[in-house]
Amino acid sequence: MSKTPIQIQKTADFRCIALIGKYQSLEIADALRDLAVFLQAQGRHVLIEEGTAAAAGCHGCQTADFTRIGEQADLAIVVGGDGTMLNAARRLAAYGIPLAGVNQGRLGFMTDIASHSMLEGIAALLAGEFSPEQRFLLDAQVVRNGKAQFSALALNDVVINKGDIGRLIEVEVRVDGEFIYVLRADGMIIATPTGSTAYALSANGPILHPAVHGLALVPLCPHALSNRPITISDESRIEIQLLAQYDARIHFDGHEYFDARAGDLLQVQRSRHAITLMHPPGYSYFAMLREKLHWSGTPRR
Amino acid sequence: MSKTPIQIQKTADFRCIALIGKYQSLEIADALRDLAVFLQAQGRHVLIEEGTAAAAGCHGCQTADFTRIGEQADLAIVVGGDGTMLNAARRLAAYGIPLAGVNQGRLGFMTDIASHSMLEGIAALLAGEFSPEQRFLLDAQVVRNGKAQFSALALNDVVINKGDIGRLIEVEVRVDGEFIYVLRADGMIIATPTGSTAYALSANGPILHPAVHGLALVPLCPHALSNRPITISDESRIEIQLLAQYDARIHFDGHEYFDARAGDLLQVQRSRHAITLMHPPGYSYFAMLREKLHWSGTPRR
Amino acid sequence: MSKTPIQIQKTADFRCIALIGKYQSLEIADALRDLAVFLQAQGRHVLIEEGTAAAAGCHGCQTADFTRIGEQADLAIVVGGDGTMLNAARRLAAYGIPLAGVNQGRLGFMTDIASHSMLEGIAALLAGEFSPEQRFLLDAQVVRNGKAQFSALALNDVVINKGDIGRLIEVEVRVDGEFIYVLRADGMIIATPTGSTAYALSANGPILHPAVHGLALVPLCPHALSNRPITISDESRIEIQLLAQYDARIHFDGHEYFDARAGDLLQVQRSRHAITLMHPPGYSYFAMLREKLHWSGTPRR
Amino acid sequence: MSKTPIQIQKTADFRCIALIGKYQSLEIADALRDLAVFLQAQGRHVLIEEGTAAAAGCHGCQTADFTRIGEQADLAIVVGGDGTMLNAARRLAAYGIPLAGVNQGRLGFMTDIASHSMLEGIAALLAGEFSPEQRFLLDAQVVRNGKAQFSALALNDVVINKGDIGRLIEVEVRVDGEFIYVLRADGMIIATPTGSTAYALSANGPILHPAVHGLALVPLCPHALSNRPITISDESRIEIQLLAQYDARIHFDGHEYFDARAGDLLQVQRSRHAITLMHPPGYSYFAMLREKLHWSGTPRR
Repeated sequence: MSKTPIQIQKTADFRCIALIGKYQSLEIADALRDLAVFLQAQGRHVLIEEGTAAAAGCHGCQTADFTRIGEQADLAIVVGGDGTMLNAARRLAAYGIPLAGVNQGRLGFMTDIASHSMLEGIAALLAGEFSPEQRFLLDAQVVRNGKAQFSALALNDVVINKGDIGRLIEVEVRVDGEFIYVLRADGMIIATPTGSTAYALSANGPILHPAVHGLALVPLCPHALSNRPITISDESRIEIQLLAQYDARIHFDGHEYFDARAGDLLQVQRSRHAITLMHPPGYSYFAMLREKLHWSGTPRR
Repeated sequence: MSKTPIQIQKTADFRCIALIGKYQSLEIADALRDLAVFLQAQGRHVLIEEGTAAAAGCHGCQTADFTRIGEQADLAIVVGGDGTMLNAARRLAAYGIPLAGVNQGRLGFMTDIASHSMLEGIAALLAGEFSPEQRFLLDAQVVRNGKAQFSALALNDVVINKGDIGRLIEVEVRVDGEFIYVLRADGMIIATPTGSTAYALSANGPILHPAVHGLALVPLCPHALSNRPITISDESRIEIQLLAQYDARIHFDGHEYFDARAGDLLQVQRSRHAITLMHPPGYSYFAMLREKLHWSGTPRR
Repeated sequence: MSKTPIQIQKTADFRCIALIGKYQSLEIADALRDLAVFLQAQGRHVLIEEGTAAAAGCHGCQTADFTRIGEQADLAIVVGGDGTMLNAARRLAAYGIPLAGVNQGRLGFMTDIASHSMLEGIAALLAGEFSPEQRFLLDAQVVRNGKAQFSALALNDVVINKGDIGRLIEVEVRVDGEFIYVLRADGMIIATPTGSTAYALSANGPILHPAVHGLALVPLCPHALSNRPITISDESRIEIQLLAQYDARIHFDGHEYFDARAGDLLQVQRSRHAITLMHPPGYSYFAMLREKLHWSGTPRR
Repeated sequence: MSKTPIQIQKTADFRCIALIGKYQSLEIADALRDLAVFLQAQGRHVLIEEGTAAAAGCHGCQTADFTRIGEQADLAIVVGGDGTMLNAARRLAAYGIPLAGVNQGRLGFMTDIASHSMLEGIAALLAGEFSPEQRFLLDAQVVRNGKAQFSALALNDVVINKGDIGRLIEVEVRVDGEFIYVLRADGMIIATPTGSTAYALSANGPILHPAVHGLALVPLCPHALSNRPITISDESRIEIQLLAQYDARIHFDGHEYFDARAGDLLQVQRSRHAITLMHPPGYSYFAMLREKLHWSGTPRR
């Protein structure tokens, strides 16, 4: 996706492989054990993320926190759904470790190895048959009175939303320092191409192919009917200031949040970090969309 | 917009300037005469496009067809609306001449010099106070039985639409050779960022900032509610094949059209040509959007 | 649906039953024969619509045109899809004959007896186990220079659409004689509740439950983003006048059309005719919607 | 609007008139004083709502709470915006007092007497030159374990919304006891025709003319793209049950709210109460829409 591709680091032969499971889920214990046994039989060193091990056992492997995984692993296999992948991606973004996703239920947009063919998929990956794809993250911070109060990464989206009571918020939106408009709405989603098929899609946002260097600004229930979604360059810097008398909650990948108050300034830009998703042989972005959105694969009469 | 910026050619001092007016319009005669007098007083050589001269007089200038304008002019000033600019842009795209637009009515997205301050705007332009912006065009052709039947450029959009009678068409959509889906719809718009604020916006398409390297695929009244607009890289090649039993009309900037029949293949990709719009001092894309879409510039209570 | 319910006429014992098949379709011959044999064995007098018989045989029954069917039949069974039902409904609306629909492919909104259980469904109907539902039609006419040029009934919708070349039309819309607005758009759909799940839904129109006494006015690709769909009372009279310099095509259920020119006036109002659909036991409007729109019937995790 | 019109009670000569102002607003003091002086000069008995008087003075009139206003007044004049009218409407719905609205800023949908011509408008009203229009309210209650926990009236809408943290809720929707679907969304709006131009419009809901006997069910950011707005009969009873593991906040006209938890059941139906809005001479619903939505009143070239 990136024109100056970030090199996949340390992946040459995937000697040390980390397993990361869905948070507090017992259901993945069998898959984890099968993976651990399989990888060890292949002579790999296996780390299990400590929270995953606490819930689903460690199957004779070493446990490790995300920092150690980041420092030591050559590959991380995520077992769960897209939410599990989002979390692992943010935690490991700084380390440049490629990520592969095994889905336990319906295929996810990012967890695209089916559980019923998990070992075949991983074997193919170890044999070098995979298709790497980079996805960028967002770097967001909230500034109050000139001082950073909170910062977070997001792979899908940063969402500023009305607070508890109010029916809308008013924010001033700037792009690269230029005033765009005052938005009166329930909120605003800033989505990456990865996030464009998640929450933003429900809010009438456009689908952005991962190869598009864009960010989608998608208003939530805007007061003015002409406040349509806008796609801007992913090199742009977005600032959203909460106007007087409003408070808001800002969500990062729907996972973390920060309670903002009038005057707070949300700054969002493309992170210098990107993740590398390892897609199985035959992966296709459009095939995934087609399945998830029930698009017609063949002409009907 | 382009990462490898195409140089503005021959613009150093704009010695030869072409005037192009709205098609068969008398209303622009006064503006043309004022421009011609002003430019000649500044020592410029002025060409008037021959169709323009036929309708609105030649005011002591030489007339020229688009080819000669392309070969000789250093700058073209378009007097009319966005439709006039679209036409001039396609006609002159191959020559790399920068274009400036004077609007006779409401400001257009591309004709952004107001008629009431026309001479000041042009004087500023001649003094080098302008902001150039590149906009890419689409190269489209229709192939029948393996042979090209028709080809055209488009600055805004290529639209394939149901024919006279039918209520919908079925097309197979491919991107970079990969099958995307079979679309059942009234049609499909392929829009550039420039065209994203034109017809595509009416069809619920996303606004694409000119700096986004993207193309919007916007279905018209799709049968399946999940056939949402998709933005793909502007380096992608799009193919749309009309399936059996349907006929369609394909529009290029809403100006030219071609009647397609079952089996015809429409191929669209970014043209190697781009145009350079010369914006007056103080121009802002977002300010233009704000005005055209009635966005709120200041918080209301 | 109607507050003053129109009585189902002549249905007491369905002695004379007409069979109407999909236009020029051979596929329905088997179903027609099975129906004819079954109904005759039940002592019913069976008429086969003459066009149907020409394509699919008459299976020992009398053939009849729509007029004779209207005058003699107590029930019409339509075998085909929703398009076949639309046509039969318009042809028989004036006669008050109830209609039952057998679908040959996927279930339709109105052809809701599945072909695999056709005889059971019809047997239930003959035994009085059915649920009648009234659906109103639209009465439309086009007036030129004060004189009616064309008139038609529609069960789904009346659509005024831009003509061949133009990219939009301008129309003046009036409701009950009051000016509403000038619409600049590709066109406008006037849909009944029955039609609200057909073409209008693709154009972002609202779903209207058949019990709502409303008509949906749904603009097609309106130039102004605030030209949203409006639902008005089904007792309202709608007038749409094509403004100078535009021509348009007006479609009635997507079946008939009329080419309108500048100045023509389209008048649409609820017809005094309604049809009665005979739904099989267990029919549910919402279940039909749920299936057709892939709505979730059960909570997913 | 209603087919069996509720009689306007006690309005014959509007002897006792209540003045109700925007909550805690000083800005309306001048308008209130002018109204009080004018009405008293016309020999009317004037009551000022006690909260209004506390903020803006009583100008020599008697103060009264809403109960006393309901029991004694023949007309209530609301000075403020649509929010002030919503509140007065709910408080006075049970008493059948007609309401007239004076707007202090931009015209509202319901506060349609402009402040600059306030006394002329009120004089016309007293002279019998007004156009009464009925608007129905919703009766909502929340049931937990079979017991009503909360109930409220709403003139615009009842909104069930995700709680603080979660990104969506799951609810089971029933209409007249029939299961419709399980909705996964940010929430759901149930809007009256009056509310259809308020919050529901921002959420892509349909405009319902006040004469339509319908309720709009408008999902907020639904997970499934086919969960489109539905209009049902205003005689239908809607039940929305919050499924396990979710909590939600339910808003009534954006004014009151109730915090619901898993299993809670929201029941909504048309109230037996309606309000009567007294529109000034020349009032037109469509003219109001036209102005608020910037619709084109005259054809542009």
